[in-house]
Amino acid sequence: TVNQQRLWDSLMQMGEIGGTEKGGVCRLALTDLDKQGRDLFVRWCKEAGCSIRIDKMGNIFARRAGTDDSLPPVVMGSHLDTQPTGGKFDGIYGVLSGLEVIRSLNDQGIETRAPIEASVWTNEEGSRFPPAMVASGVFAGVFDLEYGLSRADLDGKTMGEELARIGYAGPDDVGGRPFKAFFEAHIEQGPILEDEDKQIGVVTDAQGQRWYEITLTGQESHAGPTPMTRRRDALVGAARLIDAVNRIGMDNQPNACATVGLVQVFPNSRNVIPGQVFFTVDFRHPDADVLSGMDQALRELADRVSGELGLEMKFEQIWYSPPVPFDTACVNSVRQAAESFGYSHRDIVSGAGHDACYISRVAPTSMVFVPCENGISHNEAENAKAEDLAAGCNVLLQAVLERAND
Amino acid sequence: TVNQQRLWDSLMQMGEIGGTEKGGVCRLALTDLDKQGRDLFVRWCKEAGCSIRIDKMGNIFARRAGTDDSLPPVVMGSHLDTQPTGGKFDGIYGVLSGLEVIRSLNDQGIETRAPIEASVWTNEEGSRFPPAMVASGVFAGVFDLEYGLSRADLDGKTMGEELARIGYAGPDDVGGRPFKAFFEAHIEQGPILEDEDKQIGVVTDAQGQRWYEITLTGQESHAGPTPMTRRRDALVGAARLIDAVNRIGMDNQPNACATVGLVQVFPNSRNVIPGQVFFTVDFRHPDADVLSGMDQALRELADRVSGELGLEMKFEQIWYSPPVPFDTACVNSVRQAAESFGYSHRDIVSGAGHDACYISRVAPTSMVFVPCENGISHNEAENAKAEDLAAGCNVLLQAVLERAND
Ligand SMILES: NC(=O)NCCC(=O)O
Ligand SMILES: NC(=O)NCCC(=O)O
Repeated sequence: TVNQQRLWDSLMQMGEIGGTEKGGVCRLALTDLDKQGRDLFVRWCKEAGCSIRIDKMGNIFARRAGTDDSLPPVVMGSHLDTQPTGGKFDGIYGVLSGLEVIRSLNDQGIETRAPIEASVWTNEEGSRFPPAMVASGVFAGVFDLEYGLSRADLDGKTMGEELARIGYAGPDDVGGRPFKAFFEAHIEQGPILEDEDKQIGVVTDAQGQRWYEITLTGQESHAGPTPMTRRRDALVGAARLIDAVNRIGMDNQPNACATVGLVQVFPNSRNVIPGQVFFTVDFRHPDADVLSGMDQALRELADRVSGELGLEMKFEQIWYSPPVPFDTACVNSVRQAAESFGYSHRDIVSGAGHDACYISRVAPTSMVFVPCENGISHNEAENAKAEDLAAGCNVLLQAVLERAND
Repeated sequence: TVNQQRLWDSLMQMGEIGGTEKGGVCRLALTDLDKQGRDLFVRWCKEAGCSIRIDKMGNIFARRAGTDDSLPPVVMGSHLDTQPTGGKFDGIYGVLSGLEVIRSLNDQGIETRAPIEASVWTNEEGSRFPPAMVASGVFAGVFDLEYGLSRADLDGKTMGEELARIGYAGPDDVGGRPFKAFFEAHIEQGPILEDEDKQIGVVTDAQGQRWYEITLTGQESHAGPTPMTRRRDALVGAARLIDAVNRIGMDNQPNACATVGLVQVFPNSRNVIPGQVFFTVDFRHPDADVLSGMDQALRELADRVSGELGLEMKFEQIWYSPPVPFDTACVNSVRQAAESFGYSHRDIVSGAGHDACYISRVAPTSMVFVPCENGISHNEAENAKAEDLAAGCNVLLQAVLERAND
């Protein structure tokens, strides 16, 4: 079994990089803070005897040799980047539990037949550079390298530029090499495990996602002398669509999620009728057909609202990540590992996207969930219990050992 | 009569300071650009033989002596600050038409009994530092000096700090001295004069305004694994209230205006349910009772929507500017001046707030409007005709002469 205290201490130490007053973390992808986090991870891995490789998307692989080092590795991992008001666990737990598995094998002098790697995937959150899971997507061949490197933040800085700036534009090709298996440990980020008092979530599937960018353009004008009947107020249009997005989510219960998370109003001045509004939509559902129906409903409403208000509309679906069924054998390894330790567990569908979703296209993959406090994440208050994190890490260790030695 | 070309050239030259690619102006109050604009105005006034005084709110008074310089001055003026995407005329025309009146009197060697002043009022727009017309409000005793100097922008910088920084925290007390009369020339900023093909608007009244700041607080959480039914999405609440504000405006036609111009979403990330939204409301109506009814409707809806969604709400009316009736004698001077030149004209109620609204509390005051293209202002496309601007300036000259010599 793994070292619960060491895992916790490493999480806390990593959480200081970009740590916020409220106890959360703000460590956006490819910022100076992300570089500091990466440097710390690399140092720890080297201290654990690993060799380090970095690819052109900045993905990091820390390798512990196997007795037959020509075999494809069993890989663990997740991401180090956070939301602007994120927590200490989302992603980081998956990275540091990979490291903890390696440290524990070292402690106990256990060798594996296949090599083992702990990995860090660049820009999983998609908060600074949309979409999410860009770099694991390039690894899996879902996106090409040029697409990945050209993703830009709201200031126009690209991932390629920022990777070079922080010194993580590595030499290795992205992907094109086999994994024996891939496992990602993660906090659930939802309330189910906690509500049902289960310690381990055996992740069988991940729901599908569609992300949109919508720009409504009307006409800026003075809030005082411009009659209501002559206005083309882009924000009124956006407000109706934000409410409509919420209604589409409600209409597709259970399981649908529908969120507008980002809004930019131009010129954003109190006494100016907004001339332009940019906003995003995030739709999710485990069933691809329901998700298509939500897409259809949004398109119809967006056309209607923009038409009624005389607004021009740019409507773009910028990302579709279909529902993901994880590998049955890997899922079984996770379930059996949980059982072997006597941990309470249940099968669960991931509500969030994860690097594992894309890696599952090129390698047998599954995930291990542990509960988080009140199901809250993407929030500085995100929290998890040291015992649960250690339990998930034990499951990871066991599943990895089984795969690496078979 | 005034020099049309000189007035136009001065407007164009001032418009270069903060000039935008689209032909507008971005010269926010108390920025370096505002300082440049002020410096240019001061230089021009000195060249026209005026003496300059600056008060503690940064208001500038350029004085042309009268034959009886002990009399209170007749004052003209408006503001040099603009909206973030503003135009070359809103405010600036009122300042530079004051200067043009003085230049024309100089050209023609005309002396006046009372002195004449061209004035610049600090931060009329209220875009950077809410509310609008802060410095003329302090001059008129509506706000005290401390309130004025402590108004802060969204970054927390105060007017007092920024006045000192750009060197316009003058020595003079703010207000407390009589004006014989105050006249403000301005573009209409609405469509009425253009629609009815009138060259001069004789401004009899200005409508009332109420400005609000509303903060809704829910709970940030992940857009994927957080069930719709467990969300407290601050943006859904804001969207419903933005739509409600628009409806309140529509329900109080004719004449009501209702606008949400500014929205800030926290943390503003695509896959995070917004935990907090700050937005502003701008309500206007010429009738104080109708405006109170709109206030009542907003408060009820805000309570209902925030309650339904489980959101905390901070609701604050930050500004009330009651409807303003201008001075009958000054209004008559403007109407007679328009008639004496044979300009087409009509009486009009100002939809915007103006420095004249506050000055009217301490001096006989009225305004001269001229048409602007498509009634558009608070927009880089703001435009006006040189002939109309000169016509308004002629009316100003005549009204000022009448008052200064009586
Ligand atoms: N796990 C996680 O927070 N992923 C971010 C991508 C998403 O929004 O699902
Ligand atoms: N004239 C003008 O644009 N004033 C700004 C204050 C207002 O919003 O009415």
